[in-house]
Parts: sequence; structure tokens; C-alpha cells
Amino acid sequence: MKTGVAVRKVRRAPAEAVQALSRFGVATIHEAMGRTGLLAPYMRPIYPGARVCGTAVTALGHPGDNWMLHVAAELLQAGDVVVFAMSSPDDHGFFGELLATSFRARGGLGLIIDAGVRDISELHAMKFPVWSKAVHAKGTIKATVGSVNLPVICAGASIHPGDVIVGDDDGVVVVPAASAAEVATASQAREDKEAATRKRLAAGELGLDIYDMRDKLAAAGLKYYDVDPEK
Amino acid sequence: MKTGVAVRKVRRAPAEAVQALSRFGVATIHEAMGRTGLLAPYMRPIYPGARVCGTAVTALGHPGDNWMLHVAAELLQAGDVVVFAMSSPDDHGFFGELLATSFRARGGLGLIIDAGVRDISELHAMKFPVWSKAVHAKGTIKATVGSVNLPVICAGASIHPGDVIVGDDDGVVVVPAASAAEVATASQAREDKEAATRKRLAAGELGLDIYDMRDKLAAAGLKYYDVDPEK
Amino acid sequence: MKTGVAVRKVRRAPAEAVQALSRFGVATIHEAMGRTGLLAPYMRPIYPGARVCGTAVTALGHPGDNWMLHVAAELLQAGDVVVFAMSSPDDHGFFGELLATSFRARGGLGLIIDAGVRDISELHAMKFPVWSKAVHAKGTIKATVGSVNLPVICAGASIHPGDVIVGDDDGVVVVPAASAAEVATASQAREDKEAATRKRLAAGELGLDIYDMRDKLAAAGLKYYDVDPEK
Amino acid sequence: MKTGVAVRKVRRAPAEAVQALSRFGVATIHEAMGRTGLLAPYMRPIYPGARVCGTAVTALGHPGDNWMLHVAAELLQAGDVVVFAMSSPDDHGFFGELLATSFRARGGLGLIIDAGVRDISELHAMKFPVWSKAVHAKGTIKATVGSVNLPVICAGASIHPGDVIVGDDDGVVVVPAASAAEVATASQAREDKEAATRKRLAAGELGLDIYDMRDKLAAAGLKYYDVDPEK
Amino acid sequence: MKTGVAVRKVRRAPAEAVQALSRFGVATIHEAMGRTGLLAPYMRPIYPGARVCGTAVTALGHPGDNWMLHVAAELLQAGDVVVFAMSSPDDHGFFGELLATSFRARGGLGLIIDAGVRDISELHAMKFPVWSKAVHAKGTIKATVGSVNLPVICAGASIHPGDVIVGDDDGVVVVPAASAAEVATASQAREDKEAATRKRLAAGELGLDIYDMRDKLAAAGLKYYDVDPEK
Amino acid sequence: MKTGVAVRKVRRAPAEAVQALSRFGVATIHEAMGRTGLLAPYMRPIYPGARVCGTAVTALGHPGDNWMLHVAAELLQAGDVVVFAMSSPDDHGFFGELLATSFRARGGLGLIIDAGVRDISELHAMKFPVWSKAVHAKGTIKATVGSVNLPVICAGASIHPGDVIVGDDDGVVVVPAASAAEVATASQAREDKEAATRKRLAAGELGLDIYDMRDKLAAAGLKYYDVDPEK
Repeated sequence: MKTGVAVRKVRRAPAEAVQALSRFGVATIHEAMGRTGLLAPYMRPIYPGARVCGTAVTALGHPGDNWMLHVAAELLQAGDVVVFAMSSPDDHGFFGELLATSFRARGGLGLIIDAGVRDISELHAMKFPVWSKAVHAKGTIKATVGSVNLPVICAGASIHPGDVIVGDDDGVVVVPAASAAEVATASQAREDKEAATRKRLAAGELGLDIYDMRDKLAAAGLKYYDVDPEK
Repeated sequence: MKTGVAVRKVRRAPAEAVQALSRFGVATIHEAMGRTGLLAPYMRPIYPGARVCGTAVTALGHPGDNWMLHVAAELLQAGDVVVFAMSSPDDHGFFGELLATSFRARGGLGLIIDAGVRDISELHAMKFPVWSKAVHAKGTIKATVGSVNLPVICAGASIHPGDVIVGDDDGVVVVPAASAAEVATASQAREDKEAATRKRLAAGELGLDIYDMRDKLAAAGLKYYDVDPEK
Repeated sequence: MKTGVAVRKVRRAPAEAVQALSRFGVATIHEAMGRTGLLAPYMRPIYPGARVCGTAVTALGHPGDNWMLHVAAELLQAGDVVVFAMSSPDDHGFFGELLATSFRARGGLGLIIDAGVRDISELHAMKFPVWSKAVHAKGTIKATVGSVNLPVICAGASIHPGDVIVGDDDGVVVVPAASAAEVATASQAREDKEAATRKRLAAGELGLDIYDMRDKLAAAGLKYYDVDPEK
Repeated sequence: MKTGVAVRKVRRAPAEAVQALSRFGVATIHEAMGRTGLLAPYMRPIYPGARVCGTAVTALGHPGDNWMLHVAAELLQAGDVVVFAMSSPDDHGFFGELLATSFRARGGLGLIIDAGVRDISELHAMKFPVWSKAVHAKGTIKATVGSVNLPVICAGASIHPGDVIVGDDDGVVVVPAASAAEVATASQAREDKEAATRKRLAAGELGLDIYDMRDKLAAAGLKYYDVDPEK
Repeated sequence: MKTGVAVRKVRRAPAEAVQALSRFGVATIHEAMGRTGLLAPYMRPIYPGARVCGTAVTALGHPGDNWMLHVAAELLQAGDVVVFAMSSPDDHGFFGELLATSFRARGGLGLIIDAGVRDISELHAMKFPVWSKAVHAKGTIKATVGSVNLPVICAGASIHPGDVIVGDDDGVVVVPAASAAEVATASQAREDKEAATRKRLAAGELGLDIYDMRDKLAAAGLKYYDVDPEK
Repeated sequence: MKTGVAVRKVRRAPAEAVQALSRFGVATIHEAMGRTGLLAPYMRPIYPGARVCGTAVTALGHPGDNWMLHVAAELLQAGDVVVFAMSSPDDHGFFGELLATSFRARGGLGLIIDAGVRDISELHAMKFPVWSKAVHAKGTIKATVGSVNLPVICAGASIHPGDVIVGDDDGVVVVPAASAAEVATASQAREDKEAATRKRLAAGELGLDIYDMRDKLAAAGLKYYDVDPEK
């Protein structure tokens, strides 16, 4: 957790890979990555239906101090999502509609913050998507420097600048920049397979048959009875 | 918590009683049962306005293992609600839109799960109601058998297969199959009484007078003052 | 926490000040008061977009006992918001649509309750705004007296009868009656200043420049690098 | 959750089985039962080293009301452990040293309570073991009847009167009366096996070899490298 | 929550009343005050057996800023207990053994802090009693002024400078300075009564008989059965 | 979070640096590192007075699966502390006295685990120190491979194999291997300075004077009054 550093140049994931990933949900991408990449489940969208896919500009801040969000505003590019990590757990309201206005004006797509936000009504009206640990109106100061665009740990996940961030109603997943294209391909493969399965399930077929589970269940010890055998 | 058993035949609550109960909210039914039957308040609907009333198909699963939901899909009938209990606390995302598609295709009305779910956007779009302890995209495996259609403890409540499950924005209540008709009648009586009270309250009458509380309050020690007596 | 007292006359904040405060959000008012007055962030609206501004009628109740809400219904006037504090932490469902009907019939605008509520669907349909610690269908009794219109501690904040209560999606703030006019003026000043800033931010200017932060950041030790200096 | 019933006669687990089980820890018994029987992990002893093994006298109480503990005191016998379940979550201080004095005078060995206790210093000094969800000095009333010696759900576990309750620093486990002898035998078998394993582990042998895990690990995909292959 | 004020002179509770209260536990005093005065149950002693009774020097601080504890050290007198309240929830480690050394050198008896502490081993070795919301090694800064010796809200309780603070394994209770003598007398009366009851309970008498509960239980609907009437 | 990899060779922090760090507490080291390195405060020792200082062997496991702890037992050396991170939050009891026996036989000093442990009494009796998120008797399986000796995120901190881990009653701190010597020196400097300060504080001098705070407090707006200026 080095502080005092702001890095200007970020090697972002390829634009086509980000574009490709934007078609998939968090659960699909997490599965396509071998069930990795999720942020902690306490990270919730501030309104239902929020959705984002972009490249990470990372920032590290201290409890009650949102100074680094202003530096992040300077260093972000069109298509970025700001990821704000904390040096210690805290729930202040670090972000509101003024900063959202600034982020959007410079091309920022959303915010992932391991702390609190405020101006929820206004952010919802702006459709500016935020995933946060808390909603809290408590204001912050600008006194201590953290960092921007160094690797951070946010909500239990390791995130590097330029990684792809996808958020939806299920939470947030991070895809390393280097594997973004590969994960997009794997996500598409998963969706294709699920589309076929969905059709069969919708027609009333059982997962037990589609996935060929009956023998495995029997081998694992499941027995069927007409009535509760202990009654 | 016996495992390895799947029971095919369930003595469900009478259809007319289920139909009758479907007209009442969770709070009303809980009151009509003498203030019993509620699941723990951490069970929340995944979208506002979710509502379900049906007969329970119960399942018991292990942390991170959703195998028994597939067996529940096989054993459910039209009008059932799946109740998924855990052998130990866990928040994985056990259920998503594919399983919802399967449940719905076979007549399942909803899910009560003492763990996590995912695909929230899709489930919301499908209007497939779920009450859960958590939202989490984390996937599950299929390795260990639990049970289906044995009695379970779900979110602190004892639930038998065939019991009536009612869920709304207030939470979830379970009505034993044998008392479903009686509880429906008591719920109607409560609603009838409340309708009369509502009219009087809406006209500006006070609960103090309608419920004849003034003497009781005085006897319990409440005194009125024009101003704070200690100032 | 004196009990057994119900006070009829409350010195409410001036109507013009309440009217003036109704134009501002919780975060703005909290800032205008020198970052004070917030209730604990666990107090959440029962539906998105809920909003209230009115004068406090305070009540103190005991766990599982909502009797004092009926006395509050008697003592409230048009424009009041009921603030219900607890003698000990509790999550019962103290309040539902019948009491909301009574409050509204007598001019009550909303409820702030450091406990649970129920009938969420009905309250949402009525657009009766409530901020609570919990949603729980569990019913309450009427057995022990508390107080009405004495000062209370609700969700960590000290609230006197007649204070101004403002609630929105960000939470709840209390403004002492005596400073309501002054806080409204300070809130307006803050909004005016923010409007100018918003315009500049929307045009792409940076907070770093608008707030003149660059020298301070450098003095505090922030250095810019083109690339991560440790790589 | 029937209320208004106090049952005098309980079919307790055989004394020899209880005696046999008293030699084992909670984790061992839980394993010997096929990993079932644990109460929720929030149930913690009020002092380190607390330990109990006895037969359950069950009670069901309402939030803030400890009346049924007095009825439990009447109905318990030497060797019993009182299990107190709640009709709704609550943290009041239901139990202190006076009730402990009463329980002990009548042969009670300890208390399992899904709520709060107080007089911790005194209970510790008396060495009266209690497992609880909370420590809270808040007092209770005696106004509403629950039940004694009906089956209850306590901290997520189903407990019948006469079942064996074992508590230690790891938590609490319940053994159905009918299987107490069998579980004691299985626990002894497990301990015997562990004693042999312990000796080998203490001599420096690896679990990998003792449990023959190396092939399985390789089959499951684990590969050894001298250094991190990605560096 | 006024800030920027440090008050030198405090009207402390009479020394004899403090002395008298020091003989009683938190639960007894809370009962003697009509079940009021408890701080929130999350306030726990940092070591078992911690105990304090003294007069409050109050301080209000901001998240992550322990400056006001140094001012409290200046303004405390022999026999005081420092009560540290927060302007917003926070868990930093505000206090350690250096400050404890300073407090003790000047006569301070202990600390009640609605935040975190550190140096737990050292404080335990010194037998310096602290009740806190958290244990956390995270350090604080000294940048923003709060207040000393104004009324505060600490862990949900209203505390004035000079009030009596009593802490033990059960938690913390505050006794208003003006009623300290009266509460000490009531506590003694309660202890005297309990001593008589304890003797009878220890001899095997039941609370049911001592408190004359049998008719009330029957009137409230409790019925005794030899066996479970539903079996 | 790569899985399927076990790395044999770890570049451990120099033995003298580890030895030097072993003289300091967690809070001191955290301060000497510029207030970084702490694991989340929910990581608590399983018995008071637990203390460890050693080099990290890292492992990553899946919920309910403790297989990698056996691989860690194989790869640890004398002086190591095992750090067990989770791929998703979980509270099972992953570790007990058998594994502790194995770790100790091979030179392991302790365990840091972002999950649950069991056999608390036995571990305490062995004086085998563990810091964990939970105590839970629930057993685990051995089915899925994770990793050993890759970098992990444990309780919110980034930990590399070979880093120095220090745990005490305040929690856990990680010191990167490369800076261990430097941090030990800085810790000693801090202790030396604190020793001088402690002497002055113990003699009754105030921090206000020792740290020269009076002018800064006045500049920040603190004013002294003999009595509360608002009374």
C-alpha cells in the first residue's frame, strides 16, 4: 500500500475485449474465469439495474478523506471505471453527484468504492452507476494523500489499473487486462451452451437428465422413497 | 438432518386453503397464527413487490453445493414453492435464471433459500420471486447429497413438505398444512376487522379511542402534561 | 430516559424554516450544519425515492411494545414527522398501514423508527415514507408506557420535539428547531456555490483546479509518474 | 411453536450414554454424527473453558420475557441442561446468577440460550456454564407464557426434550436421545483413530502420506514447482 | 454536537455516592434505575474481570482523530473515567498504553470509547480497564478539534460530564450525577432483597413459589401436562 | 487467484530481521511501516495473550475444503506461520489440534486463517496460536485444489510467501520480506522514543506539552471555558 504516487499512463485492456465483455453478466464472467474475480458480496449497486463495464483507474484513500477521487478524475479516460480502495475500513460518504458530474464529463462510466456514497437520488436520476459498501451522507475531508493507478485490494479482490471491471445487480467482477479477450471468449461459449440448456429446461426437461446426474446421485447415496422412510 | 433421502409423495395443504391464503399478506397471516410462523427477518425478496403463495417442496443442501435443487426441480408440482435449507450457514449463489426456467417450466412458483442467489436482473425480468439471505454471484458445485422433502429448519423456522409458504415485501411465513384452512379463516376475520378500523382511523378517530386504551394507559402510569414537567 | 410522560405542547421550528429546508437533501443540510445531525447510516428508507421534511413528535418505546405510537398519533399535528426511539435495541415490526392511515389522517408526514416496520407493500403504495432499522412482520404488544414529546436518542442522534427532520435516499438528518432558519440559509448558500461548481465540472474542468488543490497535493507528498515507479 | 404448555415427564437419553458422551468434545461428536447437530456458531461460552454435557429441558420464550426460565427451573432434574429458544430474535439479558443459583440447587448443569445473559462475572465465579448469543445487562419482564419441554428450534438446531447437549469452547452440539449411545461409540472410535494419527503427525509424518492424498491431489490438478511458475 | 469547546469545571457526582455505587454491578444499577442507563451491548471490556466506577469526563472526537483524548487527559481529575464519543461511527485504535499511562498518572480510572483501542496486552498487564466497540491496531491522527466536557451521546446513551460511569463484564451503565445517591440506595435495597431470595433459591425453593407466580401463569394460559399433549 | 500450484522454494525474510521484529507488537510495527500492513480487525486470537512472529507460508483454499492445509504442512519449515486465504468468504472449522500437531512437529509456529477453527480448548492447552475470523466446529472436506506459496489476499491484506507475519492481542500485521530489516529498525526507533515519552507521561506531564499541541489546538479552533458556554 504505497502512497504518494499518481501514475498517468495505464496499460488498459484492449477495447474490443472490453466491448466483448460488456455483453455478459457478472455471474457468467466469474464462471468463465474458473470462479474467480468476484469482489466481496457486500458491494451492492446503489439502484436496481445498475450496470457497468470499463477499464479500471484505481485509487487508494484513507478513512474519511476523498482527496484521491479528485486525482482519479484527472487521470481517467473515456471508458474508465474508478475503483476506490481504502487503507482501513470506513463508511463515510466519499462520493456524490458533483464528483459524478466530473467523472462523466471526462468519460468515466462508474465507480466501485469500498466505502460509502451519498446523493443516491441524484446519482440514480443521472443513471451514474456505483457499487458501494454503504450509503452514508457523512462528508469527507481532503488532507492525506493516497495513490492513484497503483494495484489495490478492493473489497477483497486484487485490482490493477487497466483491468476490466464489470458490475451488475449480482455484484462486481474484475478481469485481468491480459486475459480479457480470453475471458470474453469463454463467456460467450458459456452463454451459447446455456442457451441450448435453457431451451430444454423451458420445455420441461430436467437438469438431472440434461446433465446426466442420476447415476452420480445414486452413487453419492441418494435414494428415492415414495414416503418419508422414518415416518 | 438426515441426508440421502428424496421423497416423492408429499401431502400438500388443500388447494382451496392455499388459494384462500394467497389473498393475505405475511404480517396478517403471522398475526392470525398467534404471531408464529415467521422466517428470520434477514430473508429478503430480491426485488420489491415480489409475492408468492404455494406449497413447500423442501430441500436440504450443503455449503457451496446446489445439487439438491435439481432433485427438487424433479419432485415439484404445479403450485409448489421450493424451500432450500442449509446444513451450515453459507452465502454462495445457489440459484439463477436457468434453474428458475426449469422450476417455472414444471409449475414451480418461487424459491425460499437460506443462502445466496444470482442472476438478479434476469430473475427480476422473469418475475420469478425469490427470498434469500444474500445476493452473491459465487458459483456452486454438485458433489454431496442432502435431502428433498424431509422436514427442514430454514431461516430459523421448521418447515414440512406440503406446508403453505407465503412471501411478500415483509418476509416469509410458513403455515402448517393441517392448519391452512383455519389460518385462512382467521386471516379473513382479521382483515374484516381491520377494514372497519381503517375506515375509522382514516376519518381521524384515534386508536386510543377505538381500542379503548385511555384508562389502561393511565393505569400503566402515563400522565399528560402541557409542557415537559422537568423544564 | 424518563417514562410515563406525554407532553401536549411542542415548540415547533418556524413553518417558513421547515418549508425552506424541504428544498434540500440530507447531505446538503448535514454539510450546512458543520457535518453534524445525521442519524446512524443503518436507518434506510423502506422504498427508493422516499422523502420527508417536517417537525418532530418524539416517542420512546420499549422492545416489542408499540403503545406509544398510538399516543404519538394523538399528539401530532399537520406537518409532523414521528420519531420513535427505543429503550433497548429491538427489531419488531412496530408500525404498519393502519397506523400510517391514522398518522396521515391527522396530518402526519412520515415516520423515523429505530426498530422494524411491516406492511411495506402497502406503505409503498400509500407513499407513506418511513426510515427504519429493519423490516420485520413480527407483531408487538401494548403493555408498558414510554414517553411522548420528551427529548430522545434515536439511531445515535439527540432529537428534541419540534426539531426539523429531513429524510431522503441518503438517510435522515435532524436540525435543531432554534437553528432551522440559519441552516436553511446555509444550505441555500451551499447549493448556490455547488451550482456554479457543477457547471464547471460538467464542462470538463477538474476539481483539482477549481478547488486549487495542486500545490496542496504536492506539499502533502503526491508525486506524478508516467509509469509505476516500482515496476 | 405451540405455547401455553409445560410438560412434566421427559424421556431422557440413557444416563450411561450421557456419561459416555461427556468424554468428547463438540467437534468430535459433530463428526461422529455425520457432521450434523451443531448449533449456530454465534453461540459462544461466557467464559473460556466452559464445558457441559447433560440432557435437555427445553423452553420457548418471547422477546424480553424470561418467565419460562422459572418454569424450567421447576421441571429440571439433576443432570439437565436448560435450552432456551426464542419466538423471535432478541438480545435481552434473560438469565443471571439468581436463576443460576436456582438451577444449580435443583441439579441443573448449565444453560444454552439463543438470546442474552448478564451477571457474567458472578456466573464465571460460580463456574456455571452458559452459551449465549449475547451478553447484555438489560432486564426482562414476566408477562407472556411460552412452553417448556416441547421440541424447539434453538440457534438453528432442532432440539427435543431429553436430547443430549454438549457444549465447550467450540460451541454446542445436540445429540438425539435415541442415538446417544451409538454416537458415543462412534465418537470413541474416532478418538481412537485420531490418537494413532496424532502420534504419527507428532513424529513428523505428513497427513499427505498418512491419508494417502498424493495421488488424489495430482489427479485433482495440483502440480508442484520449485518456484512460482508465473514469475 | 458542538465542537471547539473544552470545559474545565465539571460538577461531579458526590464522592460518597460514587463510592456507594462502586459496590454494585452494572445489571443491579440498571435495574435500580428503572431499567435505564445502559450503553449499547456492543461495548465490551478488553479483558475479563475489568471493572470501573468513577465520574465522567466526556470527549467528542472525529473518525480517525484522537486529539481530544489528550485534552481529556489534561482536564481529568483523580476518580474520573473518560467517555469518548464519536461524531460518526469509526473503529480506529484511538487509545493505547501511552495514553493509559498518562490517564493513570493524573488519576484517571478507565476509558469508555465508542470506537477501537490497541495495545490490549499492555493495557491488560497494567490492569487499565477499557470498554470499547472494537480492538484495532490502526493508528489515528491529530488534526480536527472536537469537544471536552460537553454532553455526549456514547454508544446510544446520553452522558453528561460528572455523571457516574460503572463498567463490568456485563457492559457499561451511566448514572446521572443528580440521582447517584438515590440510585446507590435503590441498588442496596435490591441487593438486600436478592440476598434473601438467593438463600431460598440455593435451598431449592422455586422462583415460582418465592415470587408467587403459579396463579399468574395459570391465568396467562400455561397448562401442565405429564406428556406432550400432541404426541 | 491461480489454483493447482504448490511452490516448494520460498525466499524468506532474513532470519535476523524476523528475530528483530519478534520484539515488537503489532501496533508498533504498523506505525513503523507508515500505518500499513494490518489485516482486517475481525481477525482475532483464539486465546488472550497469543503471540507469533514468523515467515509466511501462504495457502489458498475453497469454502469448506481444508486440503491445502495438508500441503502447507508439507512445505513449511521451522519458523514459518501458515497464512490461509479463502477463494470466497466462509466460516467452516478448517483447522484443529491434529493439524496443529503436524504443523508444530515440522516447525510451524502458528496459523492466520480467514475462516473458522475448532478444538479451541486443545489449541489453547497446546499454546498453538491462531488468529481467525470465526470459531466453528463444522468440519471440512478435501475435494478441490487451491494453491500453496503463491501471493494471497488474506483478510484484506496482500501477503507473499516469505513475508513476516506478526500477531498479538491487537491483531495481525504483515511486513514484506524485503523491508523486514528496515521495519525492525524503525520499530526500535519508535520504541526508544516512546520509552522516553512514557517516563514523562508517568510523571504526570501532559501529551499537550510533550507534543507541543497547545498552539495547534488553538489554531484549529479549540477554546477553553470554565463552564459550558451554552448553559
